[in-house]
Order: sequence, then C-alpha cells, then structure tokens
Amino acid sequence: MSGKARVFEVGIRDGFQNEPKIVSTDDKFWFANALRDAGIKDLELGAFVRTDRVPQMADSAELFQRFNQRRLPTDRLWALVPNLQGLERAIAAKVRSVAVFTAASETFNQKNIGMSVKQSWDVISEIVKVSKKSKIQVRGYVSTAFGCPFEGKIAPKKTLACVEKLAEMGIGEISIGDTIGVADPVSVEKVVRPAVKAWPSKKIAMHFHDTRGTALANILRSLDLGIRIFDSSAGGLGGCPFAPGAAGNVATEDLVYMFDQMGIQTGIDFHKLCTASIEMARRMGRPLTSKALQAFSHVHR
Amino acid sequence: MSGKARVFEVGIRDGFQNEPKIVSTDDKFWFANALRDAGIKDLELGAFVRTDRVPQMADSAELFQRFNQRRLPTDRLWALVPNLQGLERAIAAKVRSVAVFTAASETFNQKNIGMSVKQSWDVISEIVKVSKKSKIQVRGYVSTAFGCPFEGKIAPKKTLACVEKLAEMGIGEISIGDTIGVADPVSVEKVVRPAVKAWPSKKIAMHFHDTRGTALANILRSLDLGIRIFDSSAGGLGGCPFAPGAAGNVATEDLVYMFDQMGIQTGIDFHKLCTASIEMARRMGRPLTSKALQAFSHVHR
Repeated sequence: MSGKARVFEVGIRDGFQNEPKIVSTDDKFWFANALRDAGIKDLELGAFVRTDRVPQMADSAELFQRFNQRRLPTDRLWALVPNLQGLERAIAAKVRSVAVFTAASETFNQKNIGMSVKQSWDVISEIVKVSKKSKIQVRGYVSTAFGCPFEGKIAPKKTLACVEKLAEMGIGEISIGDTIGVADPVSVEKVVRPAVKAWPSKKIAMHFHDTRGTALANILRSLDLGIRIFDSSAGGLGGCPFAPGAAGNVATEDLVYMFDQMGIQTGIDFHKLCTASIEMARRMGRPLTSKALQAFSHVHR
Repeated sequence: MSGKARVFEVGIRDGFQNEPKIVSTDDKFWFANALRDAGIKDLELGAFVRTDRVPQMADSAELFQRFNQRRLPTDRLWALVPNLQGLERAIAAKVRSVAVFTAASETFNQKNIGMSVKQSWDVISEIVKVSKKSKIQVRGYVSTAFGCPFEGKIAPKKTLACVEKLAEMGIGEISIGDTIGVADPVSVEKVVRPAVKAWPSKKIAMHFHDTRGTALANILRSLDLGIRIFDSSAGGLGGCPFAPGAAGNVATEDLVYMFDQMGIQTGIDFHKLCTASIEMARRMGRPLTSKALQAFSHVHR
C-alpha cells in the first residue's frame, strides 16, 4: 500500500456548525490558516444557510472576505449552499468553490431541507448551471448514504442513484456521506465497489462520521477499493460535548496518523496539524476527541 | 464477509489494572457475570503478580474463589501469571487457564519484568511444563509486537520469533499485542501474513490498543487475512482518565458493533453488553470511552 490521498477538511463547517457555543470569526480565520499552514489544501469554511437556523455559520461571508482582503488564495476554500439564494450570497462573497447536498433517504431530506430528494436534485441542477456561468466549481454531498435516523438502513441503489444524478449534472467530485456513523466495511464495499466501477475513483470522496468508532475501518476498506479522497475534521470536531453519542466526523489527526504509518502521503504535517488543533481546543475551552491528537498531546505535553 | 469470530475479554484484568482507583471485588465479580450473561465466553479475570506493585490485582485469588464457591464454570476464566510463583498461587486458587507473556522488545521486557526476552522464554517454558501436569491451559502474549515506547518500531521478525518460540512450547493460543497502539494496517499485514502462513489461524489472536484510533482498522485487516480471535475490553477500559493519550484496549462494544454490522457472529448480545458496561461505568463513577457504547447510551437514555 502506497501512493497519495487527498484530505478534505470539514471541521470549520461541519464541525463548528454542531458546536453549541458559537466560535468567533477571529478563531475560525486563525484556525483555517493554521490548518493550511499544516498542509491542508481543501477546506470547507462556511455555509450560506439560514442564519436564524444556523447562527454558527452567520459569519461565512465575512470569513471569505478576510481571505480575499489579504489576497490569500481562496480557490480551495469551500462553502455549502442549499439553494440559489445561498449561491447568490456565496457569489457576492467571492466564493469560488461551493458544495451542494442531497440525501439518499427521502425522510431525512424532507426533515433536513423540506423537500423531496428529486426536488433537491432540481435545485442542485440550477445551482450547477449558475455556478458554471460564474466559473465556480461544485462539489456534491450524498447524505445518509448508509443509514438514516428515520428510515434505518439505506439500500446501496438509493445512494448510487444520487451519485449518478449528481455526476450527470457534471459535478466534479461527489462525497458519499455516512451522516450518522452506521457504515461498516461490508456496507461500504456494497456502495464503493459499484461506484468505482461506474465512475473514476478520483470523482468519489468518502465522508465518514466516527459515531461508533468504525470510521477508520471504513476508510481502510474504501482505500482498498481505490478511493483516495476522504473528508475529515480537525480534532474530530462535530461531536457535541453535551450530547454523548453524537460523535463527529472522523478526526483529521487519526486519518493522517494512519496514512502516515501506512506510507500514504497526504502532504499534511502531523505535528503542525496537532499543534493547530491543540491551540483551537484551548480557545474553545474543551478537549477535542481525536485519539491520535490526545496521544500526541500526552507525548508532547 | 461472514462467519464467526471469538472475542477474548480483557477489561477486568488489562482494563482495571490501569485504573488509578481500585475496583472492588464485588464490582469485578458482578461485572464478570454480567459480561458472561451477555455472551462473553473467554474472560481474563485477574493476575497473580506482585500485589505491592499492582494492588489492583491483589484480589485475584478471592475472585476465582467466588466462582468456584458458587460452582460457576471457570474453565474459560483466565489469570495472568508472570512466573512459577504466580502459577503456584493460581493453582492454589483453582485457576484452570493461565496467560503468560513475553515481549518483542528487549528493552520493554527488561523494564517491565526485569529479564531479557530469552530469560522470559525460559520462565514460560517452566510454566508450560507445570501447567501441563496440572491440566491447566496456557495462552501466550507477545507484547510490544509492533512498537515499543523505548525502542520505537519493532521488526516483524522479532515478533514472529516470539510467536515461534511460544508455539514450539505447545502453547495453544498466542495473542500478538500492540501494547502502545502504534500498529497500522500495513504493519499488521507484515506480521499477520507470515504468521497465518506458519501456523493455523485459530492459534493466533490479535490484541490491539486504540491509543490512536486505529484498532478497528487493524482488526479489519487482520480479519481480511484470516484472524478470527480478538482481544478487547468492555467499554474501552484501560484508558486512564487522568492521562489523556493512554487510551486502552479496543472497546468490546466497538468491536461487536462492527462485527454485528458485517454479519460476523460473536455470540455476544450487543444490547446486554452495553447495559453491563453502562452499569459498570456508573459504579466506577466515570464514563467509559467506547464510541459504540456512547452512541448506544445516547439512543437508549
């Protein structure tokens, strides 16, 4: 096993969005830069969603503005957009990369964004058209790809139908998400094997939550099958300290530690990454859950 | 992927041994029975080591006595013995299954038990002889099989030499241990592939610590290569709450959850297992680290 893998950092969006205490724009800006200094290239910085519902993301435009004002590269800083209004706000903030989302579960899609899966495809199709005109690159998420809190297990064909639809629209990269952390290596295989047969593996990313500790095993199986793009969040952000069980995305530190040991290059400096997350944890006033980060802290304290 | 796997529970020994607060004999006895009720068959109950050095294990004889007095089956209740004196104490306590240990790292062996690796082999050889006469079954551990806190990475040949030596002595089951949690799927493959070539896979167990979050990925790779016996500790016991970074054995709940999802039968009832660990955590006065257990607690609270 050797080669390269790409890490797509979602902590500042998927992570901070789930923090009960709002993280300041200063801290987000500092953390994003520290993570880029550590070698992270793709970074999801914010979301242009309803600020009354998701106040944690209300500073997304300001955050992008800070990068633009300082003439820092923004082509791989991503923003989530749920609809055309969100895209317009992203365009106004000079965002160059947006992420859209649908779900494999009908019920989840209805409860999450108030529309059917097919309606969400129509919305995404519009976003893709406008983005193309504005030279904005689009990434697609397929949520609840393995399981849904309302419907339980999700059949692989439902997930693959979403991937197919997004691919047809010309979306360059599609991230298959285990939103509630119920995937296992066998269910991963049932989705990934047909996916890499139908599309080039560089088009597919895997997005695992570590709710039940299985994320790295699922990543290993995805890697075995040819996947080389993985979403993760620094420190394992996204777990809510007041809701045990709602663990977050797989931790970037755990992922990078394992890949380093396996000889898989990510271009990320593990030491710098951990140092950044330790400082972020200090600013947040709570320890982060990543085991590799905790082991690092223990050795380097 | 289907079939069966055997889980070897080490929480009451490897776990409680690392707890700063001594767990009472009553609680240990209760927990052992609750775990057996959940379907766990092999259970490491104690260690006949120096009680001044390891006071957490001082009640081992009393614990075995409780099982014997109540005529509960004890043939798969294990005790760790470091030397002949330990074995004699185990025999006096009517222990029927003992575990012995050596290490792949010379320095670790010296620091841990004050003898060279070869000296430890001589000691084990004596233990095996006396055990045979007393009709006691012997399990062997190879510690620091992937890495050592003093020597760093350990060459697979050193680990395999230990396994070979223990196999030559006629030890029925040999557990290869990643004592400090630094193994990764590639290093696992370098040890397990030659091991299952040289010996029947039912002779080899894998013992992973989840210090850096990689244990389930390492278990998956071991499973891919034919291993079907895994050591784990209920709740992820063995992590010290006052020493972040010193995470414990892979959690039995995480292991059983993943195997259940994969269709691999362990004979363990996940619900009963979690219920037992939740009660144990209450008695200990601290949450346990297993992610699958935390997710279960969150759903069933």
